[in-house]
Amino acid sequence: MPITYDDFKKLGMRLDMSRGKPSPEQLDLSRALLDEAGTVGFLSRDGIDCRNYGHGLGLPEAREFGASLLDVPAAQVVAAGNSSLELMYDALAFAMLFGVPGGDAWRKHDDVAFLCPAPGYDRHFAICEALGIRMIAVPFHDDGPDMDFVEAQVRDDASIKGMWCVPLYSNPTGAIWSTDVVRRLASMPAAAADFRLMWDDAYRFHHLTELKLTTPDILEACTAAGHPDRALVFASLSKVTIAGAAIAFFASSQRNIAWWQARTSVRTIGPDKLNQLRHVRFLHDRAGVERLMDRHRTLLKPKFDAVATAFGKWLGGVADVSWNEPQGGYFISLYAPLGLAKRTVALAAEAGLVLTPAGAAFPYGIDPDDRHLRIAPTFPSLDEVRQAAQGIALSLLRAIDETR
Amino acid sequence: MPITYDDFKKLGMRLDMSRGKPSPEQLDLSRALLDEAGTVGFLSRDGIDCRNYGHGLGLPEAREFGASLLDVPAAQVVAAGNSSLELMYDALAFAMLFGVPGGDAWRKHDDVAFLCPAPGYDRHFAICEALGIRMIAVPFHDDGPDMDFVEAQVRDDASIKGMWCVPLYSNPTGAIWSTDVVRRLASMPAAAADFRLMWDDAYRFHHLTELKLTTPDILEACTAAGHPDRALVFASLSKVTIAGAAIAFFASSQRNIAWWQARTSVRTIGPDKLNQLRHVRFLHDRAGVERLMDRHRTLLKPKFDAVATAFGKWLGGVADVSWNEPQGGYFISLYAPLGLAKRTVALAAEAGLVLTPAGAAFPYGIDPDDRHLRIAPTFPSLDEVRQAAQGIALSLLRAIDETR
Repeated sequence: MPITYDDFKKLGMRLDMSRGKPSPEQLDLSRALLDEAGTVGFLSRDGIDCRNYGHGLGLPEAREFGASLLDVPAAQVVAAGNSSLELMYDALAFAMLFGVPGGDAWRKHDDVAFLCPAPGYDRHFAICEALGIRMIAVPFHDDGPDMDFVEAQVRDDASIKGMWCVPLYSNPTGAIWSTDVVRRLASMPAAAADFRLMWDDAYRFHHLTELKLTTPDILEACTAAGHPDRALVFASLSKVTIAGAAIAFFASSQRNIAWWQARTSVRTIGPDKLNQLRHVRFLHDRAGVERLMDRHRTLLKPKFDAVATAFGKWLGGVADVSWNEPQGGYFISLYAPLGLAKRTVALAAEAGLVLTPAGAAFPYGIDPDDRHLRIAPTFPSLDEVRQAAQGIALSLLRAIDETR
Repeated sequence: MPITYDDFKKLGMRLDMSRGKPSPEQLDLSRALLDEAGTVGFLSRDGIDCRNYGHGLGLPEAREFGASLLDVPAAQVVAAGNSSLELMYDALAFAMLFGVPGGDAWRKHDDVAFLCPAPGYDRHFAICEALGIRMIAVPFHDDGPDMDFVEAQVRDDASIKGMWCVPLYSNPTGAIWSTDVVRRLASMPAAAADFRLMWDDAYRFHHLTELKLTTPDILEACTAAGHPDRALVFASLSKVTIAGAAIAFFASSQRNIAWWQARTSVRTIGPDKLNQLRHVRFLHDRAGVERLMDRHRTLLKPKFDAVATAFGKWLGGVADVSWNEPQGGYFISLYAPLGLAKRTVALAAEAGLVLTPAGAAFPYGIDPDDRHLRIAPTFPSLDEVRQAAQGIALSLLRAIDETR
């Protein structure tokens, strides 16, 4: 194993670790979903011909399946296409063009802003940037966003129309939002009557330990607090079965679902119900999902451990350097000393290792401290992850060296 | 067979002919696409793992397949999800929010208008209505829209940003737009620099006769006329393979494709490439599509003939009643005497026969003459179509009787 950055560079590694993609071995866990696709036929449990048009909110049994995963009534769940990102984009585009229940079209306002716990998911922030929604970075703690900050902002500023939330194993910090944080989000007074929580429950079943952690039910909490329409919940099976060809879900209040139906019925005649049928038949129920996720964990845990081991070996005790060991999700956050994240990414790239651009996890791509690195260890093989983690550590150490 | 409306009513028919859906027998033509789905695997010709994320513009071989169908270079084709309606909606939503190349966001203008040849496709008009785009009905001839009218409107009125076009076997009139109409659309001066033709080539392969008619290549015509970015072309395999689970295509100039990529890359990580792979392997090439469409024609032609026969028998020679015998597409237009379309639909409904609401094919759902009926004979069985056509004719005759 190399012991300096220059040794590592000589290995001539060629590896892209920039995105949180599942590995081929993970995708193989759902091989039966593909191999047995020909045996599923096209008739749903209810006799619906899944080949034809219709059922804009999804196949009834797919909605019921989603409901069992999300602990909400099926009438409050939409089963959609292959991407929850599309659903989140559409929700905000609909809000801009038409408004959400309780308010007028956001495009009619000069200033529309969103709270963005940072570091967060770069694609969330890209949607805001594209739609011209001003982003306000929110400081992040281990138990979620800084709620004193959030409450103060939302109470006084009617231009703040919403907030991004990844409540469990936050992308990329791994934070698990506490019961108190969730309760405060649901109950806080908001100056904007149409304030919305964009609740991206992306890692609901993506545990890395045997503790199957959960966060409180946000729809229930909002209803209890007298804000039944506040939360829009998104989830996806993309990192459960097939990354590019799974099912996405949207869950919310009856009023928000009726809004969604009215808006989407102009856009589409319905989702791919055959793929929904295949998924329901393959996964069966929530227990089926959990069994499959246990097998993902078996593949993923050693990769996360390998990163922790390498970082511990090379970076343990280095001043101003820290990282987290997440209990779930797809990412590790590594913090370089002030001002060295970009340089570390550049050095890694020179050695053939493509990392997520420094700053990507912040609104407008700008990490004010230039400290944060998002590490995505899921896609490469375990050997590659071991080597890459060492390479990242050596790149960071070289970046520190350069400042001396 | 019944000989009066009352006789027909006594049959107690229960049939929904409101939408242009393929029949189960048509969907069975692509049975191998489902039955053999398990044998296709997940690796594309180029070694792409179709299960994972990425390829936002579609699987390369699916784009090439689309290019061969649409006679354009693959670089100018996007292979997308299961619905061309979604692509058309997104194109106009992007135009409203961000603008198209050559102009600013349409939402910044007080008045945005579209030309709508009428009768036309109700879902096109629903998109305009939802987005607040003012619709201007355009008179329709057998060879396409009234071009003198179109040219005069577009030349002088900068608020007119686009026009809906279904060039071949227009929904629902069956019109085939002439070379002269297409040339004039491509070359006419437009007051709005960002004027767009929404070119919905929905029935490109949907011939009902052995004449495989075509319309001139609109992208080529626009380029030749110095308006390379004018046309946005949409097509779909939904009525070729599986209505709810096929592939949709978008084709346009390089500049418009770059615009599409920039806008959609914020919304999605990519389409379902597995379904694209299955389609390419099943259909192979353009000849494969044409062979399959011949088999659709064998199923569809008798239904269209049955309607023509029934109408000829019952309505032949009735004053102010006419209908078309389309050479392709999914619909027949029946014209009642002035003011009797709504009543005919109501009488048919009383007899258990659900037709498309009268007026649906016009902007805002209003047929100023209340004459037009859209007949969708594809979904029911041939026996049902025979009976339904007679029922429609008898309902119309009763509506006429009532005025005497």
